[in-house]
Amino acid sequence: MAYEEFTIEGRNAVIEAFRSGRTIDKLYILDGCQDGPVMTVRREAKKRDVMVKYVTRERLDQMSDTGKHQGVIAVAAAYEYAEVEDLLAAAREKGEPPFLFLLDNIEDPHNLGAIIRTANLAGAHGVIIPKNRAVGLTATVARTSAGALNYTPVARVTNLAKTIEELKKEGLWFVCADMDGTTMYRLDLKGPIGLVIGSEGQGVGRLVKEKCDMTAAIPMRGDIDSLNASVAAGVLAYEIVRQRML
Amino acid sequence: MAYEEFTIEGRNAVIEAFRSGRTIDKLYILDGCQDGPVMTVRREAKKRDVMVKYVTRERLDQMSDTGKHQGVIAVAAAYEYAEVEDLLAAAREKGEPPFLFLLDNIEDPHNLGAIIRTANLAGAHGVIIPKNRAVGLTATVARTSAGALNYTPVARVTNLAKTIEELKKEGLWFVCADMDGTTMYRLDLKGPIGLVIGSEGQGVGRLVKEKCDMTAAIPMRGDIDSLNASVAAGVLAYEIVRQRML
Repeated sequence: MAYEEFTIEGRNAVIEAFRSGRTIDKLYILDGCQDGPVMTVRREAKKRDVMVKYVTRERLDQMSDTGKHQGVIAVAAAYEYAEVEDLLAAAREKGEPPFLFLLDNIEDPHNLGAIIRTANLAGAHGVIIPKNRAVGLTATVARTSAGALNYTPVARVTNLAKTIEELKKEGLWFVCADMDGTTMYRLDLKGPIGLVIGSEGQGVGRLVKEKCDMTAAIPMRGDIDSLNASVAAGVLAYEIVRQRML
Repeated sequence: MAYEEFTIEGRNAVIEAFRSGRTIDKLYILDGCQDGPVMTVRREAKKRDVMVKYVTRERLDQMSDTGKHQGVIAVAAAYEYAEVEDLLAAAREKGEPPFLFLLDNIEDPHNLGAIIRTANLAGAHGVIIPKNRAVGLTATVARTSAGALNYTPVARVTNLAKTIEELKKEGLWFVCADMDGTTMYRLDLKGPIGLVIGSEGQGVGRLVKEKCDMTAAIPMRGDIDSLNASVAAGVLAYEIVRQRML
């Protein structure tokens, strides 16, 4: 992980971080800012004996990685990556068949954050990302995950194809998103499953795709090539949710 | 499309832009600036119902590409807006029941771009956005739409609730996204439909929500509050696609 210290920016993200029990080291609030959400942040800080500093907008702007601090920046310990085994354990604990997201080189931190947010709400037990090239858990990812990073474990692996092979031994099936696949509504996506999402430009890599059991296509009825990666992940994840609810 | 093509800076340039009939989304004027040319700019803006924001010199300097804004920066539409009637005509031409997206104050240009992209690929006939407050068709929107703006018409209306009423007379049903609604899989979303998506923070506004025939909930099986707005739009749009394919 790149950051020793981690900043969490934006009101909702900071409130979520407090409520999930994350340790906040310091809290910076825009001086004179008194509205409801900021008062909530202050209350949460007081409850937990967190040091609050009131600073100018210029100071916040300087500290901000995202440019969208909304008058509130918290400094926390960096997010810990989980192990793949932790993700399976989370599924076992809930008595559910494992449902994992595997991201093949998502490069845009907004997309990674939005996908972790989706994984949380779709009831997935965790997200697996590759160590190289792809974006890691930066401040922007934390913010766009809207707090989901506090709940949904993210594991980082050296070789996604190898991880898929190992997880197959645990009984998981793998479905990857690709335009030339079978329309997703016609696939059986129930049971222990890994949803593989490709990168924004290239889609799912060949080696990873070869390891997948199924290729799911989202129906495309328009003129352009592809959905945004985080939207595609959401659409596919909720087809899995729908089938699991049947 | 290059950014230079649609911020217009300087008094004469902005006055010219107004007089040539170019669609201006927003106008930024240096706070306290009252001289002749600036008053002319303000009058032109008022005539055309353009939103004016009074800002500091620092803000203008930040926005300026040329460094010569003379206290006035206009943001012009990169693309031409369509009329609501054009959207219905597009549906008639394809011989399909109308399928429209209505966005209640989406503020993030990345989200707006991603939603227009989704609208295109879900086979929707167009997108309707409100004139005030919401983001317009900026460079970022054009870029994140991945070309969809060239195919999917976007109409801008003064009052979204009123537009919904008018479209009801054309036989459309309206479904809005809201957590307290009926699980989307249990609603009948076939036929002529308008999908109403709320803003990132506030969701669908009360007045707009009251006009909707149905409220659709995306199942939430996680710990946090809500999906990213463009992901939610994608998930709902594809439930409509699925039902239309049955």
